[in-house]
Amino acid sequence: MPKQKAYALGIDLGGTKTLAAVVDITTGDLVSSVRKRTRAEKGQEFVSQRTIELAQAALDSANLPSSDPLIAVGVGAAGQIDRRAGVVLDAPNLGVKDMRLGDILGKQFGKSVAVGNDVEVAALGEYLRGAGQGYNNFVCIFVGTGIGSGIVQNGKLYTGLTGTAGEVGHIVIDAGGRVCGCGNRGCLEAYASRTAITKAIMAEIHHGRSSVLAEDAAFQLKQGETVIRSGLLARALSQNDPLVTEILIEAADYLGYGLGSVMNFYNPEAIILGGGVIEAVGLLFDRAVNRARHVALSSAAQKTKILRAKLGDFSGVVGAACLGAQATGYTFS
Amino acid sequence: MPKQKAYALGIDLGGTKTLAAVVDITTGDLVSSVRKRTRAEKGQEFVSQRTIELAQAALDSANLPSSDPLIAVGVGAAGQIDRRAGVVLDAPNLGVKDMRLGDILGKQFGKSVAVGNDVEVAALGEYLRGAGQGYNNFVCIFVGTGIGSGIVQNGKLYTGLTGTAGEVGHIVIDAGGRVCGCGNRGCLEAYASRTAITKAIMAEIHHGRSSVLAEDAAFQLKQGETVIRSGLLARALSQNDPLVTEILIEAADYLGYGLGSVMNFYNPEAIILGGGVIEAVGLLFDRAVNRARHVALSSAAQKTKILRAKLGDFSGVVGAACLGAQATGYTFS
Repeated sequence: MPKQKAYALGIDLGGTKTLAAVVDITTGDLVSSVRKRTRAEKGQEFVSQRTIELAQAALDSANLPSSDPLIAVGVGAAGQIDRRAGVVLDAPNLGVKDMRLGDILGKQFGKSVAVGNDVEVAALGEYLRGAGQGYNNFVCIFVGTGIGSGIVQNGKLYTGLTGTAGEVGHIVIDAGGRVCGCGNRGCLEAYASRTAITKAIMAEIHHGRSSVLAEDAAFQLKQGETVIRSGLLARALSQNDPLVTEILIEAADYLGYGLGSVMNFYNPEAIILGGGVIEAVGLLFDRAVNRARHVALSSAAQKTKILRAKLGDFSGVVGAACLGAQATGYTFS
Repeated sequence: MPKQKAYALGIDLGGTKTLAAVVDITTGDLVSSVRKRTRAEKGQEFVSQRTIELAQAALDSANLPSSDPLIAVGVGAAGQIDRRAGVVLDAPNLGVKDMRLGDILGKQFGKSVAVGNDVEVAALGEYLRGAGQGYNNFVCIFVGTGIGSGIVQNGKLYTGLTGTAGEVGHIVIDAGGRVCGCGNRGCLEAYASRTAITKAIMAEIHHGRSSVLAEDAAFQLKQGETVIRSGLLARALSQNDPLVTEILIEAADYLGYGLGSVMNFYNPEAIILGGGVIEAVGLLFDRAVNRARHVALSSAAQKTKILRAKLGDFSGVVGAACLGAQATGYTFS
């Protein structure tokens, strides 16, 4: 007898875009998915309404047979979360405060709703249905506009004293160095995030250096994007653009210092590395891993697995769906 | 009826000195203790013999009544340990390789023996009988000739994939910076350990700067000591010696970057800070804590307790005694 299918609705609410998907949680496969720009600048009411619309659209297009109903809804949101109450407490990138997403979505869909932080939820997705399957103690690091990570400890998400464990973007790797968005100096995020890469490239262009991506990048940024797209970076690199190559090598080295530091302090079974720019730019992963193995002490350097995330853009929605299902008591095999 | 007493023998085998003590594990109080310089340069046979002699001396001087016998022996050794086999695999600072301490001490004392890494054992001591009582998730950082830490996770020591978790001395805090003993650059240990402080002070003196401790420090180092004693640093600081003040402030700041990084990544309930120099030099603790709270993200900065270790020089022997007792099934309340 084939295993009974089970479906959950996953929502990944990020500063740039919002994704919603119906996920077959027995496999991690997507039945349907929709995405739109979040447009946080339009305010909380807009963000909340758009989230409901996207979720409904994903559900409609999944067209689940009535014999296989949805068992739960899960959300990963880019901010600080009250997990028990299902509230997004503070999410500057979403322009949102005290948003009662659990209640809002529960009322809309009549299902149990679980809300978590976007990075931890993505780590859960990789754990249950991605590259983390088979590991019980690992750190899942995502490089995007910022750098965050989720820590899986004995098979469970470890969120720490104040729910903020995994803020690997704010370990200091260059004391007194570049100013970071957090107000401090020298954080990993100020060197290896897509925001940092963008700033470094645009500063050099501003000071007169040329690059094949100069025009396209300036156009993207003028259109309101905050960071250069991964595809554009990958293309410039494949064209051997000296400036982009130099900045990406620098970012990869710093990322490697961060990974190596995590390996030394936390000595996890594995580090899983994800995010659009990691997928698009092979050099980043390869060089960072190489550097990390130099930084790490010998036994950790030899034995820690460093893997690419497997679910790509969908680790968030898959993880959110899994989080929702888990909260209803569903057990993953 | 008063609680039944229980005693264990704890041994702290460090690169500089070896301590042995009989510990009342119901309270953490020492019944007896002895210490000698380890003299690793004399070779493995010597170190092994001296360990036995010290342990025997501690036991003799404790003079336990026959109604309260010793329940176990525990060791914390400064090196890589095979915990199951009770073997010190590799300990460059002890001049020791594949030393079967479990067997050796078991034969000598006819008791169950447990062997662990010195830093993790000291963390266990602080957990069960020191500043960590009441916390189940914390990091215990010791500043000495190196910088190490023990991670207590859900009330148990977390040793990681290869048994080396907690190597906080080798997180990179100044990429490309000072050369560290591990061969890399920019590690915390290269800035904030007693070795680093010694090197920085002696280099400045060598280049012509004066200091009230110049003569005493040179004398100590000529006598074969590897680092300036904490007491000497404390005295120079109390005399407002500009050089020593400057170097200690620098070390404290770097230590703070390290603590802040741990708070951001791991978000523990508490950080416990110990080691002779932390106890002797108040400025180090105060300034490092201050810096750490600046580096940490707000909720962690506000809520993480940062405490001084409570057992001083004896966290190792108390922890070792507790480790030995734990291995026999003794449960701590």
